[in-house]
Amino acid sequence: MPTKTKSSKPKKALFRKAVKYVYSFGSGKADGNGKMKALLGGKGANLAEMTRIRLPVPAGFTISTEVCTYFYENQSTYPPSLERQIDEAIAKIEHSMGKKLGDPVNPLLLAVRSGARDSMPGMMDTILNLGLNDKTVRALAERSRNERFAYDCYRRFLQMYGDVVMGVQKRPGEDHDPFEVVIENLKKELHPKDPHIADTKLDASALRTLTDRFRKLIRERTGQDFPDDPREQLRGSVGAVFGSWNNDRAIVYRRKYNIPHEWGTAVNVQAMVFGNTGNDSGSGVSFTRDPATGEKVLYGEFLLNAQGEDVVAGVRTPEPVAQLQVEMPEVFRQLQDVRHTLEGHFHDMQDFEFTVEQGRLFMLQTRNGKRTGFAAVRIAVEMVKEKLIKPDDAIRRIPADSLSQLLAPVFEAKARKTTEVIARGLPAGPGAASGQIYFQANDAEAAAQKGLKVLLVRIETSPEDIRGMLAAEGILTARGGVSSHAALVARQMGKVCVCGASDLHIDYAKSTLTVRGKTFNKGDFLSIDGTTGEIFPGEVKTSPSDIVRVLIDKDMTAAESPIYRVFAQLMQWADQRRKLEVRANADQPDQVGHAIAFGAQGVGLCRTEHMFFEGDRIDHVREMILAENLEERARALAKLLPAQRSDFAGIFKALGGRPGTIRLLDPPLHEFLPHDTAAQQALADKLGISIERIARRVKELHEFNPMLGHRGCRLGIVFPEISEMQARAIFEAAAEVQAAGIKVRPEIMIPLVGFPKELELQLALVHRVAAQVQKERHLKLSYLVGTMIEIPRACIVADEIAKSAQFFSFGTNDLTQTALGMSRDDAGSFLPRYQEEEIVRQNPFAVLDQLGVGKLMEMAVKLGRSTRKDIKLGICGEHGGDPDSVKFCHRLGLAYVSCSPFRLPIARLAAAQAALKD
Amino acid sequence: MPTKTKSSKPKKALFRKAVKYVYSFGSGKADGNGKMKALLGGKGANLAEMTRIRLPVPAGFTISTEVCTYFYENQSTYPPSLERQIDEAIAKIEHSMGKKLGDPVNPLLLAVRSGARDSMPGMMDTILNLGLNDKTVRALAERSRNERFAYDCYRRFLQMYGDVVMGVQKRPGEDHDPFEVVIENLKKELHPKDPHIADTKLDASALRTLTDRFRKLIRERTGQDFPDDPREQLRGSVGAVFGSWNNDRAIVYRRKYNIPHEWGTAVNVQAMVFGNTGNDSGSGVSFTRDPATGEKVLYGEFLLNAQGEDVVAGVRTPEPVAQLQVEMPEVFRQLQDVRHTLEGHFHDMQDFEFTVEQGRLFMLQTRNGKRTGFAAVRIAVEMVKEKLIKPDDAIRRIPADSLSQLLAPVFEAKARKTTEVIARGLPAGPGAASGQIYFQANDAEAAAQKGLKVLLVRIETSPEDIRGMLAAEGILTARGGVSSHAALVARQMGKVCVCGASDLHIDYAKSTLTVRGKTFNKGDFLSIDGTTGEIFPGEVKTSPSDIVRVLIDKDMTAAESPIYRVFAQLMQWADQRRKLEVRANADQPDQVGHAIAFGAQGVGLCRTEHMFFEGDRIDHVREMILAENLEERARALAKLLPAQRSDFAGIFKALGGRPGTIRLLDPPLHEFLPHDTAAQQALADKLGISIERIARRVKELHEFNPMLGHRGCRLGIVFPEISEMQARAIFEAAAEVQAAGIKVRPEIMIPLVGFPKELELQLALVHRVAAQVQKERHLKLSYLVGTMIEIPRACIVADEIAKSAQFFSFGTNDLTQTALGMSRDDAGSFLPRYQEEEIVRQNPFAVLDQLGVGKLMEMAVKLGRSTRKDIKLGICGEHGGDPDSVKFCHRLGLAYVSCSPFRLPIARLAAAQAALKD
Repeated sequence: MPTKTKSSKPKKALFRKAVKYVYSFGSGKADGNGKMKALLGGKGANLAEMTRIRLPVPAGFTISTEVCTYFYENQSTYPPSLERQIDEAIAKIEHSMGKKLGDPVNPLLLAVRSGARDSMPGMMDTILNLGLNDKTVRALAERSRNERFAYDCYRRFLQMYGDVVMGVQKRPGEDHDPFEVVIENLKKELHPKDPHIADTKLDASALRTLTDRFRKLIRERTGQDFPDDPREQLRGSVGAVFGSWNNDRAIVYRRKYNIPHEWGTAVNVQAMVFGNTGNDSGSGVSFTRDPATGEKVLYGEFLLNAQGEDVVAGVRTPEPVAQLQVEMPEVFRQLQDVRHTLEGHFHDMQDFEFTVEQGRLFMLQTRNGKRTGFAAVRIAVEMVKEKLIKPDDAIRRIPADSLSQLLAPVFEAKARKTTEVIARGLPAGPGAASGQIYFQANDAEAAAQKGLKVLLVRIETSPEDIRGMLAAEGILTARGGVSSHAALVARQMGKVCVCGASDLHIDYAKSTLTVRGKTFNKGDFLSIDGTTGEIFPGEVKTSPSDIVRVLIDKDMTAAESPIYRVFAQLMQWADQRRKLEVRANADQPDQVGHAIAFGAQGVGLCRTEHMFFEGDRIDHVREMILAENLEERARALAKLLPAQRSDFAGIFKALGGRPGTIRLLDPPLHEFLPHDTAAQQALADKLGISIERIARRVKELHEFNPMLGHRGCRLGIVFPEISEMQARAIFEAAAEVQAAGIKVRPEIMIPLVGFPKELELQLALVHRVAAQVQKERHLKLSYLVGTMIEIPRACIVADEIAKSAQFFSFGTNDLTQTALGMSRDDAGSFLPRYQEEEIVRQNPFAVLDQLGVGKLMEMAVKLGRSTRKDIKLGICGEHGGDPDSVKFCHRLGLAYVSCSPFRLPIARLAAAQAALKD
Repeated sequence: MPTKTKSSKPKKALFRKAVKYVYSFGSGKADGNGKMKALLGGKGANLAEMTRIRLPVPAGFTISTEVCTYFYENQSTYPPSLERQIDEAIAKIEHSMGKKLGDPVNPLLLAVRSGARDSMPGMMDTILNLGLNDKTVRALAERSRNERFAYDCYRRFLQMYGDVVMGVQKRPGEDHDPFEVVIENLKKELHPKDPHIADTKLDASALRTLTDRFRKLIRERTGQDFPDDPREQLRGSVGAVFGSWNNDRAIVYRRKYNIPHEWGTAVNVQAMVFGNTGNDSGSGVSFTRDPATGEKVLYGEFLLNAQGEDVVAGVRTPEPVAQLQVEMPEVFRQLQDVRHTLEGHFHDMQDFEFTVEQGRLFMLQTRNGKRTGFAAVRIAVEMVKEKLIKPDDAIRRIPADSLSQLLAPVFEAKARKTTEVIARGLPAGPGAASGQIYFQANDAEAAAQKGLKVLLVRIETSPEDIRGMLAAEGILTARGGVSSHAALVARQMGKVCVCGASDLHIDYAKSTLTVRGKTFNKGDFLSIDGTTGEIFPGEVKTSPSDIVRVLIDKDMTAAESPIYRVFAQLMQWADQRRKLEVRANADQPDQVGHAIAFGAQGVGLCRTEHMFFEGDRIDHVREMILAENLEERARALAKLLPAQRSDFAGIFKALGGRPGTIRLLDPPLHEFLPHDTAAQQALADKLGISIERIARRVKELHEFNPMLGHRGCRLGIVFPEISEMQARAIFEAAAEVQAAGIKVRPEIMIPLVGFPKELELQLALVHRVAAQVQKERHLKLSYLVGTMIEIPRACIVADEIAKSAQFFSFGTNDLTQTALGMSRDDAGSFLPRYQEEEIVRQNPFAVLDQLGVGKLMEMAVKLGRSTRKDIKLGICGEHGGDPDSVKFCHRLGLAYVSCSPFRLPIARLAAAQAALKD
C-alpha cells in the first residue's frame, strides 16, 4: 500500500517514553502482582504476589519480558531507561536489606534467575552470589564469621559467571569442564595421596587459591578480566539470562510444550539469602498437599545447611519436611501458616521453595503444583468442600485424561519395586496385569476357562483373537502402536495392554517368547504395566481400582473408598454442566451394563460382527461366506438369525430404554475365515466340504488393501441378504423386548457410505424389513436409520447423504486413515519419526487431526445441516474418548460422543470443560 | 412454505389448454422440423425435416415426447385432446395417400414406431401393418392382386400385435414362442414329410389359416379378442410403444449411454409402404459414406422383396447397395441424389432407411450415422476440405476416445499370413482382437471380470447381449449384415466386430462353434480382424497401427497412410485451439521419445522407481533395503547413484529442453524384495548374506494396507539419504546435459504429501543438494520443486502446502482411492455391482469422480492459488487421458494434463473440445 511507508528507524523509537521495565518487591510492597505473569513471568509475578500478602520474600525486582523482546529485536541491546530503573530498584533492595551492592563492609549479594510465563525448569541460566569480588568476599567472611563459606560462595560465583556469562566451557576435544580441571589439579597438589577428596573437604585457603586460579582461567580463556564491578556483573548476568532464552535446549523444550518463542523470559534479581551458613539454616521444596494422593498434609523435603540448588540437584538425600517439626518447630509452624496463606490466596495446591537462614524463613518461589490424577481429583473436590474454589474451577482444573489413572488396576507398590523391568512397549491400556503367557487365542481361552490368569502374547492381534483377548487379563504385542487392533480392543474392554514391544521375539511354532537372551515358554508368568509400558518377569501382585470395585465388581462400597467418593462428586458436577451426550462403544450386554455404570447415556456403536465369534455362530458365518449361491447363503444366514436376534435382545434389555446405535456388518469377510491349513481342515471336516473350497475362497477374498476393500455397506450392497438378516434380527429383537414392556430405541447405522445411492439402497431394505416385522408382530417400532461418515467423499457429499440419513456418526478412525492416506496398523514404521520431526504433533489416531480430518468433519456438519436442519450428529471413533477431540466435537455442535466404556468418565469431564468454555 | 400449498389435483390440469401433441408431415409439408428432437424424437424430427426438403417420405405424424411424460405421470393415460389431434392427423394421411383407415375397399395401413431424442436401436417396440383385420385384408389382397402378400402382412401384424400389445409371449417353462409353435404345427399338418420348410413356402391359404389360429391363440392366452377396429389397434400400439420406454433393456441401454429416463420417447405413425410386394420392391439401409473407413461412397445393403425389418434382423443376408446400380439403376440414381441432398442439408454422414415399393423410392428415416473412430476422423477432416463443415465442427464432432482405435494394434502381417483363415464374415468393427470364445453374454461378462480376454460369439446378437458385448474384446456373429445389431453396437462401442460369418455353426447347447469340420469349445482362443472380416484360430500376434508406424516405428511414411494424414490434420487443428498443455507419464528415454512423437510438451510424471528394476540396479536397491544401518545404506545408494544419474541424463536429452517432472521414490520398499523362498535364496547367495535376514526384512516390511503405508515422501523423511541420492542424481544429470548445450528443466516432485512440514523437510534437502551440485559443477541450474496432491488432507491444507510448493500435480489415482476409501486393486469385487445399481455411473478409476474427488481438487486449486497466485497446476493420474476428465481439468484452470503416451492424441482433442466450449 503506497500511502503507508515502512519505517526504517530502529525500534527503539517505540520505547522513547519512560516505559516501566523494572518491578520492585520487598518489605510488604510490590509494583507487580500475581496476575502479571505475561509481563513478569510466573516466578516474578508470584514473588510480587507473595510480597503483597506479607510472606517473607527477600527484596528484589523483576525485569519484564518486554525487555527480552526488545533485546532480541535490537541486537542484544536494552531500552535506554533500563539502567536507571535498575539502579533505582537496587537502591530499594539496599534500603530494605540494610546492605549495599559492592560495599566493602556490608555487601549486598544478589541472585539472578530467569522466569518465563510458563515454568521451564532447568532450561535457562541462573547466577548466584552476584556482587562478590576480592574485596567484598572478605567482608562476607568477616560478617558471617565463616571464611570458608565466603570463599566457597565466591568460587561458585566465579565458576557460574565464567561459564554462563563469559563462555568458559569445555572445548571440542576436551573431556572435562575447565573449572573442574582446575579443581582436580589443585586437589592433586594439596592431597597427592587422596586426590579425589570431596569439594567440601577443601578449606578456606584452598578455596581462596581456587578463586585466584579461576580468575586466571577466565583471563586466559577469554582475554578479559573477570569484572570486579558488581554493576557490570549484573549487566552481564541479565544479558546471559536473556540470551539463554534462545539456547538449544530451551528452544526444544518450548517446541515440545507448545510455548511461543515470542513470549520471552523475565529476569528476577533478588537479595541472596543463605541456607548454607550452618545447622540453623537450610533449604526446602514443599507442596501444600500430597501431590501423589492429594491428601491435605504439608508434603516435601528439606536439607539442613544447604542452598536451594542442592535440594533440586539431589546430591544429598533430603529429609521429609515433617521432620522440621522436631528440628525447627518455629519454622515448621511458620511453614504451616505459609501453606494456609498460599492456598487461601492462590486457591490451588502450591509447590513452593524456601530457605531458612539462621532460623529465619524466606520464601523464594511458589507455583501451582504438578500432581497425579488421583491427587488432581481429590484436591479439586476437597477444595470445593473447603470453599476454596467453585465446582466450575474443579472441573476446569483436572486434566480429563488423568482420570484413566483412577480406573486402572494397579500393581501393589511393594511388589513392583522388587522386580526388574525386562522390556518396555507402548502403554496402550492402563493398569497392571499378571498372568501365564499364551500365544494362541484359543489356548488362552481354554486356560482361562480352567481358572488360570492369562496374558495373551501375540506378534499382533486380529479379530480372530477377540475371545482370547476377552479371556486374558492383559494383552502384550510385539508390533503395532497405541491404536493398533490390540490397543483399541483392549481399551474398549478395559483390558491392560502393552503393545509394540519390539524387543520381544515371538516364535509361534515353538511357543516361546525371547527377550534379551531370556526365553519364556507358554505357561510362564509375566506382568505388564499398561500405564508405563513396563514388562516384568513372573507374577507381580495387582488389585483393581476402587472405582471398578464400587461400580462394576461391587465388592466395595462408596463409603469404603474416599477416592470413589471424590470421583463420583466430580462426575456429578461434570454431568450437570456438559451439553454433549456421552455414549459407549459396546458390543455385548455385559459391556453395555458396564458402560451404563460409567455414565453412558446409550450405545453409540455396537459392532455386530464382534458377536460373530461367539459359540457356534462363527460356523454359520463361515458357512455363509463359503456359500456358492444365494440359496446356500440364505440357509446359513437363517441359522445366524436367532443368535443375532438374541444378542440384540440382550443389548436392548441392558440399555433399558436408552438409544443404541447398531452398525451393520463392516469388516471384510476374509477376517472370519481361518487362514492356516490346520484350521481350514478342521472347518472343512466340520462343514463337510473340501479344504480346497475353503482355501479357494480365502484366496478369492484376499485383498491388497483390505481397509479400502470389500467391506462396510459394500457387503450389504453385493449381499443384500446379509443386511436383511441383520435388520430382521434387530427388529425382531426390538419387538420382543418392547413387547416385554421395555422401551427400545434402535438406531441402525450403515457403514462406509461414500455415495448417496449406497445409503438409499440399504435404507430401503431396512425400512422394508421393519415394515414386515411390525406387521408380523402387530406393533409399531420407533427407530432411526443413519450412516457412519468415515470416508472423505461422504463429507464432501454430506448434503446429498443427509437426504436419507437421519443421523451421522463420524467414524474418525477410518476417516483419519483415508483423509491422511495412512494405515493405522502400518504407520508404526514412520509415525515415531514424524513426531520427532514435528510433522505431526500427536498421533492422529489418538488425538483428532483437527486441521485435516476436523476440516472434513466441519464440512460434513455444515452440508448435512443444510439439508436436514435437525440431523443428529455424533462421533464413534476412538477419538470420542480423547479430551481434546471431545472439546472439538463440542465446538462442532455434535449431539454426542461415543467411546469405550472405560473412557466415559474422561469424556464426561472433557465435555463439561468444553461447556464451561462457552 | 405456508403461502404455497401443494396442488393435489391431477397433473392433467396443466394440459387443459389445447397443447399441440401431434405433428403431421407429408406431401412436402411438416408441422415439425429437424431441430425439434427433444419434442419429436430424432426419427420424428428428421422425418419432418426430410419432408420439408422434399425427400419422398410417406405421410404420417409424430406424437410428442410430452405425451410420454404425461403417460408416465398419469397412470398410463393420455391428455384429453390427444385423440382429437390424432384423428385430424389421420385424416391428413388419408388425404395425402388417398386411402382410408379401416376402409373395406382401399384401406390405409400404418406403421407405429418409437423415436427417442437419441437413437436407441432395437430397444423399443414397433408395430407394422396396422389397420388390417379380416375385412381390410381382403381389400389389400384385391388391390395388390397378391393374396399371399396380404395374408402374410396380416399374420405378421397379428403376431407383432399379439406379442407387443397383448403380451402373448413365451411363458416360463415354454421353450418356444407360442406364435412360432402355431406355425411349426401348421407346417407339420400341411407338409408332414417336410415339416421344416421355410415360411416363404407357405401359400396364401396356409397363411389365412394361420391368421385364424393366431386370433384364437390371442383369445386363449389373454381372454380377449384381437381388436378389429383400427383406431383401437392404434390406441393399443401407441400405448405399447410408450410402455416399452421402460422395459428392462431400454433402461439398461439408457443407463449405459447416459440418457436421462425423463426424456421419454415420441411415437411415429406413418403410412405403410411395402418393400415386399415383388421383385420391383425391397428395403435398404445405407450410409452416405462408409461408416467403417469413412470413404466417400454410398455404402449399405439392400434386400429385394423385403420389409425394412428383414434387413435389420439379419435373417437373410442382404446384398450391397451398389448392386442396385445393376438391378434398379433409376432407384440407384435417386439414392445418389438423396445422399447428396442429405449431406448438403445435415452436414454430417447420414444413416438412412428406405423402401422401394414397386419401383418407387420412399425414405423412412435418416439420422447421423454411427461410425468407427477411423471413419469419424476421416469424414470430419474430409468434410472440412469439402467445405461442408468448419474445423471447429470437426473437432467437436469426433468423440475423443474414438482416437484410440486409430492407435490400436492390428494383426501382425507375418503372423496373419502364416495363420489360415478359417472363415470370413463382414468387417463390421475395425481392429484386431483375440480372445477366448464365449457364447452367452453373461458367461462372457463373468470371464472378462476374471481378467480373461474374451470374444463373444453369437448366431446373432440382440439388445439382451449388450453387457456381454461390452465385456468382450470383439464380437463375432454367424448371421446379420453390416447394419445388424451386432455391427451397429460394436461400431458405437469401438469394439472389433466380424458379423454374418455364415460358415460358422454355433451350437448353444453344447457351447461349440464348428467351422469346416473343426470344432472350437467354450474357452478356446480365436482371433478376428474387424477390418477385413477374417477369422483365425488361436491367438494371432498383433502389430502397430499406421499412426504408430509413421510416428514411432518410422517404417511407414505419411504419404503411404491416408489415415495418418487425416489424423495429423485433426491434431493440428486441435493443437491450435486447446489451452491445456499435454504432457506424458514416461519413465524412460525411449518412452519420452514416443511421447514427444504423440505431441507431449513435456513429461508430467517420471516414476523413478520404474528404472530400479533395470540391469543390476535391482541388486543395489535390495542391498539398500536390506541395510541394517545408515552406513550400509549409504554404501548401497552410492552404487545406485551413477545408474540413476545416467537414467535422468537420458531423459533430459530426450526431452530436448522440455520440462520434466520427476517424482522421488514412491512405492513401499517391500515391492523391491523377492517374496518366494527360491528368489530369496538366490538374492542371499548374490549378496553373501543369510536368507533369514532377507526373510526377516520381508516380514518386517510387510504391511496390512501398503497403499496407506510407508511410501511416498514418508520414505524420504525416514531415509533422507534416499531422497538425497535421487536429488543428486537429478542435478548431476541436469548439469551434465546442460553442459552439453541442451536446456534442462527438471521439476522435482515430492509424493504423498499430507502435512506441510513433510514438504518443507524434503524441499530443504533438495535445495541443499542443488546448491552443492551447482557449486561443484560451477553452473546455475533452473528447477522447480513441487508436490503431488494425492491424499485428501493435502487438498484441505493446500494453502499451507503452497507456501513451499512451486507446483501441484494431482495424483488422481491415489486421490480417488483415498477420497473414496476404495482400493483400485480390490474394487473388482463390488464395482460391477455398483455400476449396475447406478451407485456409480462410471469406473471412478477411469473417469474422474467430479462430484467427490473433483470437489477436493477444486478446493486444492482455490487454496493453493490463495497462497501462491501463479502456482503451476497439473494432473498426472490415469484420468489425464480420459476426455471427460480432461475437460474437467480445463474448467478447473489447470495448466496441463499428463497421461500415458498412447492417450496423448485423445487428451489433445479433448482439450481442444473443452477450449471450444468456452
